[in-house]
Amino acid sequence: MPKKNAFYAQSGGVTAVINASACGVIETAREHRAHIGKVYAGRNGIIGALREELIDTSKESRKAIHGLLSTPSGAFGSCRHKMKSLEENRAEYERLIEVFEAHDIGYFFYNGGGDSADTCLKVSQLSESMGYPIQAIHVPKTIDNDLPLTDNCPGFGSVAKYVAVSTREAALDVASMCETSTKVFILEVMGRHAGWIAAAAGLAAQKEGDAPHIILFPEIAFNREKFLAKVKRTVKKYGYCVVVASEGAQYKDGTFLSESGLRDAFGHAQLGGLAPNLAQMVKDEFGYKYHWAVADYLQRAARHIASQTDVDQAYAVGKAAVEMAVAGKNAVMPCIVRSAGKRYNWSIGEAPLDKVANVEKMMPRNFISRDGFNITDAARTYLEPLIQGEAYPAYRHGMPQYVELKNTLVPKRLKRRFKV
Amino acid sequence: MPKKNAFYAQSGGVTAVINASACGVIETAREHRAHIGKVYAGRNGIIGALREELIDTSKESRKAIHGLLSTPSGAFGSCRHKMKSLEENRAEYERLIEVFEAHDIGYFFYNGGGDSADTCLKVSQLSESMGYPIQAIHVPKTIDNDLPLTDNCPGFGSVAKYVAVSTREAALDVASMCETSTKVFILEVMGRHAGWIAAAAGLAAQKEGDAPHIILFPEIAFNREKFLAKVKRTVKKYGYCVVVASEGAQYKDGTFLSESGLRDAFGHAQLGGLAPNLAQMVKDEFGYKYHWAVADYLQRAARHIASQTDVDQAYAVGKAAVEMAVAGKNAVMPCIVRSAGKRYNWSIGEAPLDKVANVEKMMPRNFISRDGFNITDAARTYLEPLIQGEAYPAYRHGMPQYVELKNTLVPKRLKRRFKV
Repeated sequence: MPKKNAFYAQSGGVTAVINASACGVIETAREHRAHIGKVYAGRNGIIGALREELIDTSKESRKAIHGLLSTPSGAFGSCRHKMKSLEENRAEYERLIEVFEAHDIGYFFYNGGGDSADTCLKVSQLSESMGYPIQAIHVPKTIDNDLPLTDNCPGFGSVAKYVAVSTREAALDVASMCETSTKVFILEVMGRHAGWIAAAAGLAAQKEGDAPHIILFPEIAFNREKFLAKVKRTVKKYGYCVVVASEGAQYKDGTFLSESGLRDAFGHAQLGGLAPNLAQMVKDEFGYKYHWAVADYLQRAARHIASQTDVDQAYAVGKAAVEMAVAGKNAVMPCIVRSAGKRYNWSIGEAPLDKVANVEKMMPRNFISRDGFNITDAARTYLEPLIQGEAYPAYRHGMPQYVELKNTLVPKRLKRRFKV
Repeated sequence: MPKKNAFYAQSGGVTAVINASACGVIETAREHRAHIGKVYAGRNGIIGALREELIDTSKESRKAIHGLLSTPSGAFGSCRHKMKSLEENRAEYERLIEVFEAHDIGYFFYNGGGDSADTCLKVSQLSESMGYPIQAIHVPKTIDNDLPLTDNCPGFGSVAKYVAVSTREAALDVASMCETSTKVFILEVMGRHAGWIAAAAGLAAQKEGDAPHIILFPEIAFNREKFLAKVKRTVKKYGYCVVVASEGAQYKDGTFLSESGLRDAFGHAQLGGLAPNLAQMVKDEFGYKYHWAVADYLQRAARHIASQTDVDQAYAVGKAAVEMAVAGKNAVMPCIVRSAGKRYNWSIGEAPLDKVANVEKMMPRNFISRDGFNITDAARTYLEPLIQGEAYPAYRHGMPQYVELKNTLVPKRLKRRFKV
């Protein structure tokens, strides 16, 4: 096999550990210099390939690359750009080949979720459809935990840990003051289609009565009356009620709870937000004092409380991707395999990319309690191993030491510019 | 000095380290058995004294009490209850004396902020005004950092660390995706009257151009045009803009930015929230994609990322309070004294309570940059030592191990009930 350069890109929403996968890819590629020349990272994801903006990772020191292991977000930049099919936008694929050829790129590592897996699959088919030899390996990443054929997705475990820890902490706060102050606390978390992240909040509870008392999943149609009744029952029984809601929570007809239906003086739709809308509902009905929090990016960037298991797995899929490439594979994705048995053990498996792309793994119904407001023991058994271990970053002057790369661009070789 | 029991209560909004002060009080009292009998904690703060709901901390093991050092929120419950003056509500003071007398209480430790210092001062005067011998010592606590005569307030350093770390993490997230996604990120933090917490976000920046690009302080009148101009300039220059806003940010006329001015179909005031309102403003003007987060209770409960300095100081003021009591003091508050010199050093001093009560320490103007949108080097020099060190709690099954006390109530000795 002739020596070729590699292209690596980060795609879609970033996570606390996507850079750990980058670290796995780059460190492992450096161990296979016989097969892999340089690793070029796309500046802002696949857009970097289309624009011929390639970052030369060989300009980064071993220390800097190793620092990626504990640095959140996308060190090379990411983007939301879904490539259309070859038929719909042949120009983009031709451009990719042009750039790959100009920089002698034979390996394509794409680090993303479901949409990205689809792009990666299309790239993997370039050899056949357009006669350009490329091996495309997908490196799984998504906080949404919705990729199929892998037990879980790198990025999820750390969000899960953040949400579980934050829920337990905020719940202690509310519990300690509910006699004279806030009775209902609402935490809004990410998860537009699947309730995995909200489910993780369930790990905050250790015994009957512990928060969260109500979890709202996108998978369960929201019923105002049932919700309010449960809030009331909980406040009566425990003195307070903690609600964790997926941003994707919705009514039976598909209307999101985050839509307020209000317009301001200029006629603009008022963006209510799920948490304030739920709070208003509780206030209107019972007059309870409430507070709400929206974790938003804090949750997926929270490297300071990342799960060690998640960091290990994120690195491992990056490493495995390179090993698969060197072994001549194409159109595959390293995945995480959970061993049978009571004690949690995982290893890396291999999933065919055409079975991954565009398939969304939803929460199994048996992970959600019968009343739809909490998780079951089965969910707990699944989730708990994923938040094990604390992968603390190093600190300096009281702040985590996250690396910033030089991100030196490779000189362009093509005259043609390409508009993305 | 005859041996007397002690009363300890937590007051007002809880923090990540108020229990560390409780730990300091109780552990130190246990070392002074010649002077102090039992430490009774008020169930839900001062209300516990009025209702004769006293928690017998002697029923808790050494291990449990020591666990308070790393447990956030108020382990005995807190409350918002400001006692009126003796003239206005003599009945409450008489009740306190009745309860103190029934349980042989001679020491009063009150763990709270400015309002609580006032209550503590009033209690300290009971000896003189009502002929009941009591020594009242205030134990400072407030995330708002607004108590006078102390260099800083226990509880603040940990919120500051949480906000600084979260800002840096979320900023990395936004920076990595701004090319095709979110351009403006807004984080709302606590601080209704003083901008100390928002100021702490400034520690996230290491060099020119780093986030946060804009901090909104309650101390600086909000100017829509100046704000929007700065957002635009920042996005043009750096590709993205991170805003950290105090919940107390307000217009010149005192209108809070959190007021939306909207009403829903039922005529209820719509609770917009500061962060969504700012986001809407940016969207209306420039159409930038935005995200916003509201940290709310997560920030003041975040024991998982507490500052070691803060934990040490919280413990120290609890310990010093007991030592002052044993030394015969009354109407004082242990405070934190910063030594002169370049290297940060602190010790415990003593402040007279009548100089503490009802005085609010605002951010000095020279801590805020000339344009009103950021902190100065002077602020950085003041703030940075307060977030030093990571006081990680112990973990089990991937979750922090926070103690739950038995909170056994002392049998009531009084027939009379008292309605609070």
